Amino acid sequence: MKTTILTLVLGYAVAFSLAVRAQQPPADGPHYTNGTHLVRPSDYREWPFLGSGLGMTYDPAPGAQASRPQLFTNVFVNPSSHRSFMQTGKWPDKTVFVLEFRNAGSEASINKAGRFQTDLVALEAEVKDSRFPDGWAFFNFGNRDQAAPLTGSVVAACIDCHTKHTAVERTVVQFYPTLMEVARRLGTVKPGF
Amino acid sequence: MKTTILTLVLGYAVAFSLAVRAQQPPADGPHYTNGTHLVRPSDYREWPFLGSGLGMTYDPAPGAQASRPQLFTNVFVNPSSHRSFMQTGKWPDKTVFVLEFRNAGSEASINKAGRFQTDLVALEAEVKDSRFPDGWAFFNFGNRDQAAPLTGSVVAACIDCHTKHTAVERTVVQFYPTLMEVARRLGTVKPGF
Repeated sequence: MKTTILTLVLGYAVAFSLAVRAQQPPADGPHYTNGTHLVRPSDYREWPFLGSGLGMTYDPAPGAQASRPQLFTNVFVNPSSHRSFMQTGKWPDKTVFVLEFRNAGSEASINKAGRFQTDLVALEAEVKDSRFPDGWAFFNFGNRDQAAPLTGSVVAACIDCHTKHTAVERTVVQFYPTLMEVARRLGTVKPGF
Repeated sequence: MKTTILTLVLGYAVAFSLAVRAQQPPADGPHYTNGTHLVRPSDYREWPFLGSGLGMTYDPAPGAQASRPQLFTNVFVNPSSHRSFMQTGKWPDKTVFVLEFRNAGSEASINKAGRFQTDLVALEAEVKDSRFPDGWAFFNFGNRDQAAPLTGSVVAACIDCHTKHTAVERTVVQFYPTLMEVARRLGTVKPGF
C-alpha cells in the first residue's frame, strides 16, 4: 500500500511539473528589466549559429559600401526556438536572435589571403515576443548589459525591411542556409518572396 | 529503518552513476565505425560556433587565390569540449572540430553588397583522440556519412601546419576570437606564437 501511494504521489508530481513547464516561457528565451529592456544574453555564443556575412549592406546609395569597413556579421538564436523551427519552419513566441558585428582580419599568421573574424564591435538583437505591440522588437546593446527596444525613426527602417524583404516572418532566413532548406520543405516561405 | 536503507541504496546508486560517467567518453565526442572511421556528427549545427572566414587560403603560391572560388568556412566544436576549453584553455581528449565550406552568395534579395553563406560544398573534421598514434587525426567526409583518417602525403601538410602555425595545441585558435581571449588569459597560447 505504501509503495502504491508513493508511486501515485510521484506520478502526480511529475505530471504537475511537466504541465507547469509547458505553460512557462522557455528558460533560454528573452529576459527583461523594466518590463521591456532586454538583458544581453550571457551565453549566446553557445547558441545555434545561423549564418555569417561579410560586408553586407542594405544601403543602395552609391559609395555606401566603400565608405564603411568590411565587417563580419554572425547570427545566433536561442536553442529551444531553433529546435522548434527545425520541426515547424516557424518561430515560436519568445524567440531571441543575436546579431554580432566583428572586425575582419587578414594576412595574419598562416593566412595568405581572405579574411577571418576578430574583435566584437557591436551587438544587436531581434525578439519575437507578444509583449510588444508589433509582436517583434529590435535592440542595440552597444557596450551595455541591457537595451531598451528601438523606437521611432531609428527602428522604422528595420521594421520596413524585416516586413517586406524577409523570407520567413520577420527574419532573413534567406541568409541562413540550413533554415531556408527547412522553410522550403515545410512551405513556410512567405508568398511572393 | 526502511527509509534509511532506501536512502543508502539511492545514495550509492547516484554515486556509482556519477563515477561511471566520469570515466566514460563524452556523449558528444567522436563516434567511429571500424575503430577509426569517424561518423559524421548529425547535430554539429547545434554545436558552439568558433568562427568564420571568407576566401582563406594557406597557399602562398601567386595566383592561388585568384584561381579558386571564394568560400566561407565555419568551424564548430562539440559542446562538452567547448565548456572545458572555456575553463582551462586546453582541449580535452575526444574533442571534435567540424569544418564547413560553403559557397558565398551576393547581391540577392535586399543585400546590395557583401557576401553571405549559401550551400554546403565540403565537410571536414579534426579530432583530438588518444586512440590515434599522433593523438590527432584529420577527416574529409565529402558526401559520405563516415570517413577514414587521412594518411600519408594527403595529411602531411595538415599536420605540418597544425603543428607549426597554431596558437593552441594543434588548433588555429588565432582565428576563433572568443577562444583566443580565454587562451591569452589562461596562458595556454604556445610559446613563440
